[in-house]
Amino acid sequence: MELWYTEKQTENFGITAKIKETLVTEKTDFQDLAIIDTVEFGRMLVLDGMVMTTVKDEFVYHEMVTHPALFTHPNPKKVLVVGGGDGGVIREVMKHPKVEKAVLVDIDGKVIEYSKKFLPEIAGELDNPRVEVLVNDGYMHIHDHKNEYDVIMVDSTEPVGPAVELFSRGFYQGIYEALKDDGIFVAQTDNPWFKADLIRQVNKDVREIFPIVRVYGANIPTYPSGLWTFTMGSKTYDPLEVDEASIPEIETKYYSPRLHKAAFCLPKFVEDLCK
Amino acid sequence: MELWYTEKQTENFGITAKIKETLVTEKTDFQDLAIIDTVEFGRMLVLDGMVMTTVKDEFVYHEMVTHPALFTHPNPKKVLVVGGGDGGVIREVMKHPKVEKAVLVDIDGKVIEYSKKFLPEIAGELDNPRVEVLVNDGYMHIHDHKNEYDVIMVDSTEPVGPAVELFSRGFYQGIYEALKDDGIFVAQTDNPWFKADLIRQVNKDVREIFPIVRVYGANIPTYPSGLWTFTMGSKTYDPLEVDEASIPEIETKYYSPRLHKAAFCLPKFVEDLCK
Repeated sequence: MELWYTEKQTENFGITAKIKETLVTEKTDFQDLAIIDTVEFGRMLVLDGMVMTTVKDEFVYHEMVTHPALFTHPNPKKVLVVGGGDGGVIREVMKHPKVEKAVLVDIDGKVIEYSKKFLPEIAGELDNPRVEVLVNDGYMHIHDHKNEYDVIMVDSTEPVGPAVELFSRGFYQGIYEALKDDGIFVAQTDNPWFKADLIRQVNKDVREIFPIVRVYGANIPTYPSGLWTFTMGSKTYDPLEVDEASIPEIETKYYSPRLHKAAFCLPKFVEDLCK
Repeated sequence: MELWYTEKQTENFGITAKIKETLVTEKTDFQDLAIIDTVEFGRMLVLDGMVMTTVKDEFVYHEMVTHPALFTHPNPKKVLVVGGGDGGVIREVMKHPKVEKAVLVDIDGKVIEYSKKFLPEIAGELDNPRVEVLVNDGYMHIHDHKNEYDVIMVDSTEPVGPAVELFSRGFYQGIYEALKDDGIFVAQTDNPWFKADLIRQVNKDVREIFPIVRVYGANIPTYPSGLWTFTMGSKTYDPLEVDEASIPEIETKYYSPRLHKAAFCLPKFVEDLCK
């Protein structure tokens, strides 16, 4: 018998992956959570029927949420990750010795628990002493912490279920206030093929709040369309003004100093969404 | 009743697209040819069970095969397209007024015939007076034409079926000889997630023949992994030395002067394949 996981990425298009084993399926207080072992991409975390991460391609998303912002800010001491309970972003943040403390706030403790158990390659740094893990509402957290963080990363699910408010103008305003005077934030902002309106709206909202707004992309094979976008809002530092030669070498598979600025050069139809 | 087209891009992973209508299914002398109308991507040309192009995303592939090479060569008068019977590359080539003649050589006349009939947005320039269409073996054609072309583009299927020889060292040698002394060639070279060995091998072969070899990428949602690579071999001109400010504006949706060099900045794991 062959079992296949099929995800409708839109109503009319999807991906399908042969699976070896289903490790977890659980309805948590917030979402449907599954971890399945696929032949092509290894273990896969699925929330509300959408691939969140896989062992084979997770490095792209986690590196690309993290390093462009942390190599743009000259002194990122305190970092907040909203969502990201699988721990992948935290693992990348821990590659930056300047970071003294990273706080992870995920609303769903089950994501953290099962990631530690079944995705140790990804979750392995959640126990790092520089990391504080909070099971809490990220929206509330940022509104309770003013002028505190150097960098904030929003590693949310799509804007359905518990993440809806993480794509709101009020949330971006809260992030602005939770950041220090030279802070930077970055959020995953879906793909330009099926979610053009979302990218356009987020860009508009963030531009009304942050003086510097930049959008960049990365190729993630298990995400819809294979091209994922990230939107960065910054109070002072411009990622396009970073001297690439000054970026130290760290262990990565996708990000590189050479790619730091090139990732912000988007296809024309995507640039047109961000005007 | 719902009909879905499902393509196994590897043995264990695939895409699936809801279809409205099947317009053609035919076993030609060379391959299985189908044109189906999908809800998400519009009409789709499928050869030997692999998506070749769709109306919604075809612009990426066709622009990105064409413009990096044609804006690197300062005077591309005579251009050869090997394969590409759907006419998409020819349509983009025709945007370059410097091109006096473009020859298209596709081994399968049925691809040309059905593309003209069912994919007129793509095939529309095949009747341009600057274009000569030949139904012939591209491998033979290049071996019969020495020192003749300024730019050669290889718009082949995957290296199965009729395209196997289009990924051979002998073919690249033939291309070198069919090019003038300052000629450039570019070939689609599949994706780095599932076909890393192919990219590595082509890179090695082309480096043994051409003094300048550059690999670039583009996001194509209906192609495996969403990240497609192209390998360029050049006798004289380096695409990375083009002055982007000198590139004239043409009507595109993906390519832009700003992207010209950035497209050559690849993820680290892909750059590592091309060393």
